[in-house]
Amino acid sequence: MQDSLSKLGHKGTPELGPSLLGGVSLPAAVLHEAALAHNLAWMQRFAESHGARLAPHGKTTMTPALFRRQLEAGAWGITLATAPQCRAAFASGVVRVLMANQLVGQANMAIIAELLEAGADFHCVVDSEDNARELGHFFAQRDLTLKVLIELGVAGGRTGCRSVESVKALARVVDAEPGLALAGMEGYEGVVHAEDPVPAIRDYATRLVEAARCLDDEGRFAVDLPIITASGSAWYDLIAEAFDTAELRRRFTPVIRPGCYVVHDHGIYRQAQQGVLSRRPDLHAGLRPALEVFAQVQSLPEPGLAIAALGKRDIGADQLPEPLRRYREAGAVDEVLSVEGWEITRLMDQHAFIHLPDSADDVRIGDVVAFGASHPCLTFDKWRRICRVDERLDVTEVMDTAF
Amino acid sequence: MQDSLSKLGHKGTPELGPSLLGGVSLPAAVLHEAALAHNLAWMQRFAESHGARLAPHGKTTMTPALFRRQLEAGAWGITLATAPQCRAAFASGVVRVLMANQLVGQANMAIIAELLEAGADFHCVVDSEDNARELGHFFAQRDLTLKVLIELGVAGGRTGCRSVESVKALARVVDAEPGLALAGMEGYEGVVHAEDPVPAIRDYATRLVEAARCLDDEGRFAVDLPIITASGSAWYDLIAEAFDTAELRRRFTPVIRPGCYVVHDHGIYRQAQQGVLSRRPDLHAGLRPALEVFAQVQSLPEPGLAIAALGKRDIGADQLPEPLRRYREAGAVDEVLSVEGWEITRLMDQHAFIHLPDSADDVRIGDVVAFGASHPCLTFDKWRRICRVDERLDVTEVMDTAF
Repeated sequence: MQDSLSKLGHKGTPELGPSLLGGVSLPAAVLHEAALAHNLAWMQRFAESHGARLAPHGKTTMTPALFRRQLEAGAWGITLATAPQCRAAFASGVVRVLMANQLVGQANMAIIAELLEAGADFHCVVDSEDNARELGHFFAQRDLTLKVLIELGVAGGRTGCRSVESVKALARVVDAEPGLALAGMEGYEGVVHAEDPVPAIRDYATRLVEAARCLDDEGRFAVDLPIITASGSAWYDLIAEAFDTAELRRRFTPVIRPGCYVVHDHGIYRQAQQGVLSRRPDLHAGLRPALEVFAQVQSLPEPGLAIAALGKRDIGADQLPEPLRRYREAGAVDEVLSVEGWEITRLMDQHAFIHLPDSADDVRIGDVVAFGASHPCLTFDKWRRICRVDERLDVTEVMDTAF
Repeated sequence: MQDSLSKLGHKGTPELGPSLLGGVSLPAAVLHEAALAHNLAWMQRFAESHGARLAPHGKTTMTPALFRRQLEAGAWGITLATAPQCRAAFASGVVRVLMANQLVGQANMAIIAELLEAGADFHCVVDSEDNARELGHFFAQRDLTLKVLIELGVAGGRTGCRSVESVKALARVVDAEPGLALAGMEGYEGVVHAEDPVPAIRDYATRLVEAARCLDDEGRFAVDLPIITASGSAWYDLIAEAFDTAELRRRFTPVIRPGCYVVHDHGIYRQAQQGVLSRRPDLHAGLRPALEVFAQVQSLPEPGLAIAALGKRDIGADQLPEPLRRYREAGAVDEVLSVEGWEITRLMDQHAFIHLPDSADDVRIGDVVAFGASHPCLTFDKWRRICRVDERLDVTEVMDTAF
């Protein structure tokens, strides 16, 4: 590896060229191109097959190179969660920015005002009359118009109006603010909790569509084809189906915004995807996990125990990571060694405790292990740079993150 | 706030000047100068009172400006956990670098070789003959000498030799490698688990001292006054006491290396510090929590529930964070509003669910809440920039992190 002091301060990810099995400082976060390309095409095709626009949630990766790949694959825009995230996305060339969140705080409003002045096509979400009035005042003072979507939530859920009545009341407040333009309805089905989630989420999607129709009937929208949007990464099929009518498309712009699909995972979203595929056998070959963290065995201090140089500083720990494959350092990429029976039992800041089965008698210090994790958002945010690799495990691109 | 597109891609922390109550994009990670200065002096005084050197664990903060403060306060060096961390510390002016971890992988060895060539005074840890031979080969080939400390672990623990016999055998291997110089003994008492931890940790510290004496008696050390080092942030008093003899100081350089003390916390280390103070009533006024995350109330969607713009992307979540104080946005810093009875019940990536008591009838969207967390390491690594503030909550320094 051509290491230079100029890269100081960043986790030791590499210049273009070296392989994960030699040359790259490990641990490193890794994206497999084949799975990535598959997922990009898969979700775009899924959205289009339902007549929906795709605005992938960018907070998952905060990786501008991935935003560009998503837009090149046909995405309509990128969804973000905070004003600084929107600023980072816009700076990397994303013009249509959907902030699926409330815009709160004068400093955050100032960031968005700057983006509007620079030409961003920006939307955010409102769920309160006080917030709407404050936003209206802020943007009107600057001769700007902020496009907002009213959020419909659920009782006991997260943000969002709790009733169609409060949606309608809020729409009247937005209408009266010259600094605001009501541009659609927003929801998030991920906070619907029920014994039997599928009918509950379908019911929520129906309520969302009805609320949007209701505002449209009242002439509250300030734009043609206002947005109707929902969906995280677990129930996007139910949302896309609820939006998939010719009548809805005549009146609205349906937008789904899963985020985790782009790299998928080895945990909660793998499980959620099994749910999607069981509901939708027509989709057969589903998403593939593209994100792994490569780390090395650091110590073999006693029988049955390996310590890997992998910790909470390197990989999401909502669930304990899963050892997937093993290679010898500087070995051949097709000589995959077994991790059968390996189990992470504890994760510290910089170390993983791995229980080894009796059969694991060939393990060496320095062995390179690929780990999978649940919930990719909390792996991405550990890294300033992500290695995209080909099937030879050669690094073909080093992607900066923008957290 | 003077926001500019040049800061794109970073969480919206501010230029110097604005206040957390107006001008700074929230959420933001915040260091309170008074508590920080207190902690820096407190731990330095503690180490000196026991005749020990202080090499604070830098992986906690990975904030070069804090490394400089620690060195200015009298620290002997900075401890790190990985080769890229050592590189970042050295680049920021830290010459004496103690990597309290094994050095594994050719790319990581290359980073350290580069630091040695650039003049770093570097030590790392070994616990295996295979690793020692590989390191010896690597550094001898480059005409470099790597100073290593042998690690003594505990059965069922993390890394480290499990017996004094294996320590002695490993010392013979190190001795035979021209690329290596045995420069001390290392341990970490944080992985000692026992019903009654205090005597178990004292016993471990005694074993560590005995192993060091044993190697010294055998003439295995290649340096004068070899290092003897242990201690995390919870039991440093027991380690310092075990190292605090005139005989030990005549033969060794005792080094303690707590990390979290510099900002302390509102969780596990607050609890651990109560343990220290109960064992050591002479220390009375102990460490103070210096790290908080400021975030705003984003939504008040139903009675008894506030949603704050604070998530796992912003604050450590080993334990749920704790609301500490509340201010009005653009309000006066001395008008502190109540958060009595406020409780975070759930933390998502970008949102905190806060249960409000009936008495919380004055809450407004936009209210600024200071949150405390457990385990500061996992708050620091969420941020590229940290705001150091004075007692007026004005930002007096923006500190870059180097994760």
